[in-house]
Amino acid sequence: MTIYEIITKKKHNVELSTEEINWVVAGYVSGSIPDYQMSALLMAICFCSLSDRETTDLTMAMARSGDMIKPETGGFNVDKHSTGGVGDKTTLIVAPIVAACGVYVPKMSGRGLGHTGGTIDKLESIPGFKTEIPFEKFVDNVKKSGLSVAGQTGSLVPADKKIYALRNATATVDSIPLICSSIMSKKLATGADGIVLDVKVGDGAFMKNYEDAEKLAEAMVRVGKLAGRKCVAVITDMEKPLGRAVGNSLEVIEAIEALKGKAPSDLMEVSLVLAAEMLYVAGKGNAEECRKMAEEAVSSGKALAKLREMIEIQGGNPEVINDYTIFAQPERSKDIYALEDGYISSISCEKTGLISLKLGAGRETKESDIDFTAGIIFEKTVGDKVSKGDKLATLYTSTNCDIEAISDEFSAVFTYNNEKNYSEKIVKKVIKGY
Amino acid sequence: MTIYEIITKKKHNVELSTEEINWVVAGYVSGSIPDYQMSALLMAICFCSLSDRETTDLTMAMARSGDMIKPETGGFNVDKHSTGGVGDKTTLIVAPIVAACGVYVPKMSGRGLGHTGGTIDKLESIPGFKTEIPFEKFVDNVKKSGLSVAGQTGSLVPADKKIYALRNATATVDSIPLICSSIMSKKLATGADGIVLDVKVGDGAFMKNYEDAEKLAEAMVRVGKLAGRKCVAVITDMEKPLGRAVGNSLEVIEAIEALKGKAPSDLMEVSLVLAAEMLYVAGKGNAEECRKMAEEAVSSGKALAKLREMIEIQGGNPEVINDYTIFAQPERSKDIYALEDGYISSISCEKTGLISLKLGAGRETKESDIDFTAGIIFEKTVGDKVSKGDKLATLYTSTNCDIEAISDEFSAVFTYNNEKNYSEKIVKKVIKGY
Repeated sequence: MTIYEIITKKKHNVELSTEEINWVVAGYVSGSIPDYQMSALLMAICFCSLSDRETTDLTMAMARSGDMIKPETGGFNVDKHSTGGVGDKTTLIVAPIVAACGVYVPKMSGRGLGHTGGTIDKLESIPGFKTEIPFEKFVDNVKKSGLSVAGQTGSLVPADKKIYALRNATATVDSIPLICSSIMSKKLATGADGIVLDVKVGDGAFMKNYEDAEKLAEAMVRVGKLAGRKCVAVITDMEKPLGRAVGNSLEVIEAIEALKGKAPSDLMEVSLVLAAEMLYVAGKGNAEECRKMAEEAVSSGKALAKLREMIEIQGGNPEVINDYTIFAQPERSKDIYALEDGYISSISCEKTGLISLKLGAGRETKESDIDFTAGIIFEKTVGDKVSKGDKLATLYTSTNCDIEAISDEFSAVFTYNNEKNYSEKIVKKVIKGY
Repeated sequence: MTIYEIITKKKHNVELSTEEINWVVAGYVSGSIPDYQMSALLMAICFCSLSDRETTDLTMAMARSGDMIKPETGGFNVDKHSTGGVGDKTTLIVAPIVAACGVYVPKMSGRGLGHTGGTIDKLESIPGFKTEIPFEKFVDNVKKSGLSVAGQTGSLVPADKKIYALRNATATVDSIPLICSSIMSKKLATGADGIVLDVKVGDGAFMKNYEDAEKLAEAMVRVGKLAGRKCVAVITDMEKPLGRAVGNSLEVIEAIEALKGKAPSDLMEVSLVLAAEMLYVAGKGNAEECRKMAEEAVSSGKALAKLREMIEIQGGNPEVINDYTIFAQPERSKDIYALEDGYISSISCEKTGLISLKLGAGRETKESDIDFTAGIIFEKTVGDKVSKGDKLATLYTSTNCDIEAISDEFSAVFTYNNEKNYSEKIVKKVIKGY
């Protein structure tokens, strides 16, 4: 077996054996296969794709490349993963809902790179909140209160870290089997019994069109099933930012509001669907029953109490739940007004993300610092009727960015129409893997 | 301009600009573009190919990556290149023919890697023959006697050396525009005014099928034309070894025999066609006249005298022309006999090449030593009728290889048939670029 032969096979669209895939992953992680051969293989995979069997083998080989850590909670562990979007704070909402319904949610999460931080960064905007906690403590927290959110350790899925960095440098990111193996290897390595995947589709998502999103969702569910996990994928809309808040503490506040029953309809619907699917994979009832349980966890205040409990256990100030002034406050803000009359026909996620990054809410490089206060609150959304001069949004920052220049740029985020031509359909499809 | 953007463009089958191609070649040679990004780009080129314009730009950028050395002979310089085959000693025949007709042939040649040595190695089997000569001396030799064959210097087309090594490690060799740019960049950098390309096709050639050989031939002729050179490609058969001798001194002897008018018909025909095309690009007459000139250079003995002159000028013993015992003699030989009655229906070039390598005639790695005496003489060829026990060939070697085991393997080189189903057509097409 040589890497040359394996590259040649894949280049000629021949299926690789399990043994060959295991050998490539082990060889690349150990360094015996150099980057320049791996990148040639990855490019060949972009053109020729991988079969379901190959994708599963790749995912398993990657998962096994580092520690396989199963949080031994004694119960059924449910994990949730989003392929990433603008304004996506659903983890902060669904994890407390599901935990409030008696299902364990041991959530290991990454830091964000791009328009806003990841879940870990968002939670760290809560004064005192600790995300770097020992694994035993993490498991204890889950056993005690049903949920914990912690940062990933360095020894998890080293194959994914190395392959992802190479893909990122060689324009080999947009391959469905490679995306699938990257996401699922991490889920399998962290030992979830049930996995709910939120596959975003649209302008603001990694998957720009529905067809690709569906292919990815199906691939992930298939791999999850073949790996013996209960797995559901939900395809959700990312044509406009989710909810009204973009930024770290701003999104935490919106999540708290959601748990108080006061979220925008799109955010609430995505959260309830994801929470219900998590309860479903945990065997808490049929679809209708799970949806009802999720709704009641919110209306009863139990989910909010669960979030408060997690914040307290992880060292944060739980009073943020009631008093948002406990968060660091932005030093500057700038209101944005409508430039014309009409219906808002679109809000560009990509541009919103870029503006948010410029305001300081995200990281341009791994080493960048995040401004937790920075971000955007939308007052109007797609489908709303506006008159020239109406307030559309407010920008916030505590960095020394040029907020005037950024606000000029921000106007291009909106487009207008004479008629209302929008009807919200936030959840597009649910794919159950068992 | 970033390499990431360029990889992405090519991956999506978008044409690269001249500026982009120049930037990639310069960046790769200087080391600012790492191997792992270049190999991803090369793999994308394997899938999406390059346009004629891109191929020419790549070829020119590669040619300019090192020294551009034009031998200032004061005359029209003709070069000849073969894509490589088994038993191909045509350079040793055509260069003297063309020089005897008054056209300069300054030939810079490489060492071989594989079944036998390159032209340089073959010539070094002549006792005393020097191929490492200063460039000025090389040009002087051409002015004096019309031809010289010397080894390539280190500073010629470094881009090709680096890209070829990477292609060889990443299974990105079999791309027609990449093969074309590799060959033509070297021809353009060595400043030939006219170039005749021998594109081999068949089992023993790099191009296994006629369609690919034709595409490569057309691409090279096009690039040559766009670069302002007179260029002709001849597509020739490599379904069986060319001539009867395979090995270094064995092939030199067969070339001398050819110049004495005693070559096998396939070798003689390829040599005369190539020589005639070289005379044609040099403007020595029309097709018919050039063919006649080439034939007369052989029949008059002038071409043989030219070879003798070159051997003498480059320090070799010119008496080898008349006395083949001056060559080092093989220590061992082994006759091979027919295993059945019938017509020989094929002689595998690939297997012949491998056997020749095992006997010591070629290099397995760059550092290997060549046994100049090693090789094969075929007594019978494709289409010949044989009876069981007839002598088919003799193997020669001076290494300590296991000649008995090799001779057992060698039997598989031949296949037999009840009827004669072969008619020789050694030259398949001539493509003129102007």
